[in-house]
Amino acid sequence: MAAPDAVVDLYDKLERLDAAWSPRVVAEMNDYQFKLARFEGRFVWHRHEATDEVFLVLRGSMGIELRDRTIRLGEGELFVVPRGVEHRPFADEDCRVLLIEPRGVVNTGGAGGELTAGNDVWL
Amino acid sequence: MAAPDAVVDLYDKLERLDAAWSPRVVAEMNDYQFKLARFEGRFVWHRHEATDEVFLVLRGSMGIELRDRTIRLGEGELFVVPRGVEHRPFADEDCRVLLIEPRGVVNTGGAGGELTAGNDVWL
Repeated sequence: MAAPDAVVDLYDKLERLDAAWSPRVVAEMNDYQFKLARFEGRFVWHRHEATDEVFLVLRGSMGIELRDRTIRLGEGELFVVPRGVEHRPFADEDCRVLLIEPRGVVNTGGAGGELTAGNDVWL
Repeated sequence: MAAPDAVVDLYDKLERLDAAWSPRVVAEMNDYQFKLARFEGRFVWHRHEATDEVFLVLRGSMGIELRDRTIRLGEGELFVVPRGVEHRPFADEDCRVLLIEPRGVVNTGGAGGELTAGNDVWL
């Protein structure tokens, strides 16, 4: 776990990500967490009933399927999935992403399943 | 103002910043705002009593004076100033930064002065 008052080098930490779809916490602000994740392949459809969720692509590119359209994100692009909106992230190739959401949010929302990652795991 | 459900291209929006020390909102998540700002020169000493504040450098480099030390941030580096902690950001040359903090936070905290920027101004 990083010291709470340390400088966080996001691109350095990106290199240390391992399994896809396993967000790792790198910083906290109030009751929010900044998490880095590696996306590759297709995730599961899910939603977060209590919160919006921010995706910011740091390396590579990804998409987010919504029920009515597909969002595409490249490096430096940010998208806010509104609370309650079903979404399914995907990445054709390795993509590294910064996620921002309240502490305690589980990656699969209420959907569960084998891609549900351990929560509050620091990098 | 950007549509709430639009993709936000941070590097494109960076180009549209004008005056230094005048944060512009580019996205919202729950009751938090993502703001882009241009830093150049020295800001004022201030603190935010009710919230932590996140600085993420997107282009250039900057520093944050604290009362007991100086933090230095380059591109891709993030720092969380804890609530209540006095700080003074500075940049020797033009620097572009992403700020994340609750809606309603004023850039000069309780310090006021001529560098106090309009709040909730969208880019």
